[in-house]
Amino acid sequence: MKIKVLAVTGIRSEYDILYPILKKMQANPMFDVVLAVSSAHLSEWHNFTLKKIEEDGFKIVDKIDCLFMTNRNVQRSKGIGILTYALSQTVEREKPDFLFVVGDREESIATALVGNYMNIAVAHLGGGDPVFGNADDPIRMAVSKLAHIHFVTAKQYGKNLENNLKEDNFRIFFTGNPAFANIKNTESKTLQEVSNYLDFDITDGKYLVLVKHPLSSEETDAYSQMKITLEALEEFCKVNKYKVVASYPNTDPGSYDIVKAIKEFENKSFIKFNNTLPREYFINLIRNAKVLVGNSSMGILEAPFYKLPVVNVGNRQQGRLNAGNVEFVKHDRSEIVNAIHKACFDEDYIKKIKNLECPFGDETAPEKICEALLSINPKDEKWLVKKVLC
Amino acid sequence: MKIKVLAVTGIRSEYDILYPILKKMQANPMFDVVLAVSSAHLSEWHNFTLKKIEEDGFKIVDKIDCLFMTNRNVQRSKGIGILTYALSQTVEREKPDFLFVVGDREESIATALVGNYMNIAVAHLGGGDPVFGNADDPIRMAVSKLAHIHFVTAKQYGKNLENNLKEDNFRIFFTGNPAFANIKNTESKTLQEVSNYLDFDITDGKYLVLVKHPLSSEETDAYSQMKITLEALEEFCKVNKYKVVASYPNTDPGSYDIVKAIKEFENKSFIKFNNTLPREYFINLIRNAKVLVGNSSMGILEAPFYKLPVVNVGNRQQGRLNAGNVEFVKHDRSEIVNAIHKACFDEDYIKKIKNLECPFGDETAPEKICEALLSINPKDEKWLVKKVLC
Amino acid sequence: MKIKVLAVTGIRSEYDILYPILKKMQANPMFDVVLAVSSAHLSEWHNFTLKKIEEDGFKIVDKIDCLFMTNRNVQRSKGIGILTYALSQTVEREKPDFLFVVGDREESIATALVGNYMNIAVAHLGGGDPVFGNADDPIRMAVSKLAHIHFVTAKQYGKNLENNLKEDNFRIFFTGNPAFANIKNTESKTLQEVSNYLDFDITDGKYLVLVKHPLSSEETDAYSQMKITLEALEEFCKVNKYKVVASYPNTDPGSYDIVKAIKEFENKSFIKFNNTLPREYFINLIRNAKVLVGNSSMGILEAPFYKLPVVNVGNRQQGRLNAGNVEFVKHDRSEIVNAIHKACFDEDYIKKIKNLECPFGDETAPEKICEALLSINPKDEKWLVKKVLC
Amino acid sequence: MKIKVLAVTGIRSEYDILYPILKKMQANPMFDVVLAVSSAHLSEWHNFTLKKIEEDGFKIVDKIDCLFMTNRNVQRSKGIGILTYALSQTVEREKPDFLFVVGDREESIATALVGNYMNIAVAHLGGGDPVFGNADDPIRMAVSKLAHIHFVTAKQYGKNLENNLKEDNFRIFFTGNPAFANIKNTESKTLQEVSNYLDFDITDGKYLVLVKHPLSSEETDAYSQMKITLEALEEFCKVNKYKVVASYPNTDPGSYDIVKAIKEFENKSFIKFNNTLPREYFINLIRNAKVLVGNSSMGILEAPFYKLPVVNVGNRQQGRLNAGNVEFVKHDRSEIVNAIHKACFDEDYIKKIKNLECPFGDETAPEKICEALLSINPKDEKWLVKKVLC
Repeated sequence: MKIKVLAVTGIRSEYDILYPILKKMQANPMFDVVLAVSSAHLSEWHNFTLKKIEEDGFKIVDKIDCLFMTNRNVQRSKGIGILTYALSQTVEREKPDFLFVVGDREESIATALVGNYMNIAVAHLGGGDPVFGNADDPIRMAVSKLAHIHFVTAKQYGKNLENNLKEDNFRIFFTGNPAFANIKNTESKTLQEVSNYLDFDITDGKYLVLVKHPLSSEETDAYSQMKITLEALEEFCKVNKYKVVASYPNTDPGSYDIVKAIKEFENKSFIKFNNTLPREYFINLIRNAKVLVGNSSMGILEAPFYKLPVVNVGNRQQGRLNAGNVEFVKHDRSEIVNAIHKACFDEDYIKKIKNLECPFGDETAPEKICEALLSINPKDEKWLVKKVLC
Repeated sequence: MKIKVLAVTGIRSEYDILYPILKKMQANPMFDVVLAVSSAHLSEWHNFTLKKIEEDGFKIVDKIDCLFMTNRNVQRSKGIGILTYALSQTVEREKPDFLFVVGDREESIATALVGNYMNIAVAHLGGGDPVFGNADDPIRMAVSKLAHIHFVTAKQYGKNLENNLKEDNFRIFFTGNPAFANIKNTESKTLQEVSNYLDFDITDGKYLVLVKHPLSSEETDAYSQMKITLEALEEFCKVNKYKVVASYPNTDPGSYDIVKAIKEFENKSFIKFNNTLPREYFINLIRNAKVLVGNSSMGILEAPFYKLPVVNVGNRQQGRLNAGNVEFVKHDRSEIVNAIHKACFDEDYIKKIKNLECPFGDETAPEKICEALLSINPKDEKWLVKKVLC
Repeated sequence: MKIKVLAVTGIRSEYDILYPILKKMQANPMFDVVLAVSSAHLSEWHNFTLKKIEEDGFKIVDKIDCLFMTNRNVQRSKGIGILTYALSQTVEREKPDFLFVVGDREESIATALVGNYMNIAVAHLGGGDPVFGNADDPIRMAVSKLAHIHFVTAKQYGKNLENNLKEDNFRIFFTGNPAFANIKNTESKTLQEVSNYLDFDITDGKYLVLVKHPLSSEETDAYSQMKITLEALEEFCKVNKYKVVASYPNTDPGSYDIVKAIKEFENKSFIKFNNTLPREYFINLIRNAKVLVGNSSMGILEAPFYKLPVVNVGNRQQGRLNAGNVEFVKHDRSEIVNAIHKACFDEDYIKKIKNLECPFGDETAPEKICEALLSINPKDEKWLVKKVLC
Repeated sequence: MKIKVLAVTGIRSEYDILYPILKKMQANPMFDVVLAVSSAHLSEWHNFTLKKIEEDGFKIVDKIDCLFMTNRNVQRSKGIGILTYALSQTVEREKPDFLFVVGDREESIATALVGNYMNIAVAHLGGGDPVFGNADDPIRMAVSKLAHIHFVTAKQYGKNLENNLKEDNFRIFFTGNPAFANIKNTESKTLQEVSNYLDFDITDGKYLVLVKHPLSSEETDAYSQMKITLEALEEFCKVNKYKVVASYPNTDPGSYDIVKAIKEFENKSFIKFNNTLPREYFINLIRNAKVLVGNSSMGILEAPFYKLPVVNVGNRQQGRLNAGNVEFVKHDRSEIVNAIHKACFDEDYIKKIKNLECPFGDETAPEKICEALLSINPKDEKWLVKKVLC
């Protein structure tokens, strides 16, 4: 009897973490892995990453549309509603042993709800992380209280679950960040190859990467915050002959406003916006970057593995474990410029980062997760019913 | 400027707790109270309590159908999905200052999700209660991590929120159980009046009350568990010339099976099943009962106020604070009979219960809740953004 | 390459017509038949006929909950909404060549909408029937304008589609009523066997059958109309020593009120209400009945095959082709009694009915439908795009 | 007692027709007009025309998100599903006397379904139009069979409803196209003003207008069809020193591909794409254009009022009444170029069009519609129950 795992995914950033885990499972005859694909993956406006998942060779058991085309803040709770309804149908048909989900977005809470009421073990990766300020953050906590198995990316996060959310110790597995397996396993590409793919010359290695998303508690400032950030980058690049490779934002309310700001800079020569970089190019882009700017969780959770300095602009990612590579700055032009300057040119700072100890584990997370799941009987009441809740 | 409160309600048991709070608000010119009515309230099979809410004089701003007519366990997560979608529409239109919700059922999590993403303060009554074993119980925890204001019914529950779920102390208000205000304010009726209403003679006072719901983790046993309980009651009543007044179960999966068991006993003379008892009759029924049997939360949370012995059958309500009036028994005929016997005839036990100290506060919860809400600025980031999550 | 047919079903009455068609397809290696099961089939309150479909050996590809538990008239449009969303997900995954649906209820319009937008050939059985007065009736017309292939149960109905709704002649196939195949293929059971199954003695053959549903345009009268009908039956039965075997109503708004009236008669000895009669018993029950009373479409569309007199009470079924076996009466006690009297005792009338010519074909509809589908290329634009619409 | 009209709108093109009717009602104290706003109006990607509706001064009673962000063909049926559910909630609360809807898109069928089941009179504008080839077209027919009152834009369309769809004559009102009232009432603007607004110089009057949408039956060709069209326009403009002002497509599947083709031409100097032109500018743009190219229904239904030649490219709009101003061409570069040439330079053809007789009425449609509604008792069964359906 195989162990059937139904993973639920909604957006590329979270799928990139899921991918090495699913690949590891797929390679193990004990597992039967299927996916429910939803939300941004189904949106051509967000690069239709469904295609990518199909090419990766996974079995997709349902495509669940739940991303409403609006920038209003009702978008997310309405989307969760529809996803929760539709996913229940999928789960009843597929009868998985485990539901698997990563992170703090719509699919995490929808999956946790479905598992809770349908009595199916929910394995969640990413709990115990005290980041705050975004609508996703309390969701992460709610998911932890509903999920039955916790894979955590830092030891401290596991302790938070046990001590601060009263989750049973036996449910918590410190695995580290699975994204590191992607990074480790990705072959090198030269900057020439990356430049060719991007159609943007960064062969001299003098470039930054920008990834910036809206923050729900400051949603109405999304446009001006992005504009300030881009102006700061322009200033820095002009002075220092640097360039910027930038990603588009996620689907959250405010993202439309960020894109509006992007449009004003799209034709400038110092910056290249890209929505479609395959993982092997993206990883090599990051490997060789001087600094990551913006407010992506990647800055906190992945950049330490690259030993990459990060300038985190604004209040997103506050409260997260800082491996020492992240400098937090306000949406202030000169603060941003100065922090980038330090990250690019302050030799001591750069050295310190090269020597940091990464608290988010190593490239073995996928194995650890598979082993843990194999050790669990998902029908056992021990796992399904929490006897200590608070 | 009035303070607009949008309360969300789904079923009579939870509405009964909400009622005295809403009435208190309605009497206060500072408040503008409106209701979104959903789920069982809209079901004629569950006594169509929408009518009752209308008669109570509240303004209903939307009727949200989300109760699917099935006994399968997909019912609840599908229902939450639809409710979350539809409630988002209501909330965007009504623009309340506070969302208000009670307990651990579908409407609690849907409301908490909507408030979280739409940046509206969610006030929740009932957090911090460590009851476990039912699908509702982890939901209660998830709601606490999402809600911004916690009204708790026991001091210990407040401590649980603060120490075990890391909720900010300033968000927690010990108010006690609002249902006590109903009880206090309800005029006496004689057992003759109650008997007349019921068309069932309990004028000699020798009767028990039975309220029993399914338990999600033992859903498939719902029928046999109810049958054993009814057989035990029949045995006890036959020997002791007692009678039983019983309620129908809630809407959860398994409830259909409980009703199936009820149908086998419906025509027996020792028992009367009733779905429609108005609050004033129900309270007087409980006031004069010898014991409450079953697994309703009322046994734990309200019966101490009545100084009423409770025989809690099975695993529902495990983990809850026991004021000393509750005896837990298995689904075992003689265990049930013995426990009822003790509750009816053991003078020492009865005396002990008459003297218990109720840990769930007094009849002042509605005032305390109103005062607390008046002291809060619901647009203040202090309330809307939790800086400590775990 | 097999021809994949996805049939959509929602309630037993319509499934009974679908059944012989699906069985015929299942027996033909050219077809791959799958079902999406929804609505009343998933309701334990409506006998959970999902179980029956599973026992019949069909492959069920999704269970779609869309029956909201309420008697309000929003129930049906809300249900169609959810069904249309969920069915789209099923259809995208299953990629059928044909969608197949029967009749005029929620699943018919949902299926037609999905086929229209997803460019999949919709085969519909039951178009061209001019019955009016119920909310289902205009839906039937809308479905015909959306469906690509029309199987009609009467030649006249085919003409109506062609001449009055401007449907292409080549899309219309007169097949007759598939239910006749069920009737023909069902072995005889003695009235003793039927009585045993029912636990109700009708061995003397002196019995009527009652099937009565609410009418949307007279929804608020559902209770009183049912009551009058039951009183009339009681009167007739008392005088003539007859009995009644009755079915529960469908799920439409007003059905709850009909059940309320039923409850008042449930314990009377002249009548037996039954929700669970298997097809082989039901058909033998009808075969031997003296008259069918109520307002089921069966009276118009199936009773002629049995040569059975029908007393149609009220405005439901108005406008339908009358084979000569149906007498329409008002909700008037003496009108009903008189009409039943005539149907039971007027030898000339009974003889006339025994000799009627059934306009609804014979038992060969399932074969005809299979043949027609085999003759059609479902990807051909000729079928998918209607060039004459009005 | 006022007559309450609830209009349902989903996209600007249809709202532009609705607008003069609603304005006329708003000016009449007999009417109470409210709107449910859905779909593309709520999408920033489609110019967030909700804002426009608010500025127009209408009361919006609900904002219904139902546009899923995907280019797959499931988008539309899924959207209709959600809209139908949500609109039912709105209608139950608002209790309108009439539902009002225009055209053949998602909101038309959702509104007709809700009215049918909730027994509320549905007034529909746009029936009887035999256009075919698009998924919208059969929907229009389905809506006519469900709606209770038909406002038609051409006498012939009314005849089609009566003779070919068997709608009662008394339900049909020939009013003409309400958009003509907009045109008539819009003040002149000079081409200088229009050029300034567009930031695109068309002061010499040598310009075409392009409006092109995807066709569901040729959805996969949307990109190449748009590309051919744009190449033909480029060729014509280069030779003749003409320019093009173009609109973005609607939200239908395939629209994303059209936008992809647009992006390739966006920076060319002969063409200006615009998404945001206010009505007063758009009307003056059309008034002075030499020809309208593409496949918008405006070419058939509005251009005759302007006496404007139209080159309709491809199969969309086939079957519609041609006032003589429309030339149908294939997606063939030289065919398109030749037809535009004729429309711009063939004096006889231009003269013929200047003298055509417009079959779509005049600017009085809004008054006629108001008068008709005032003459109808929306609770009368005569209107609510169709006694002849086919």
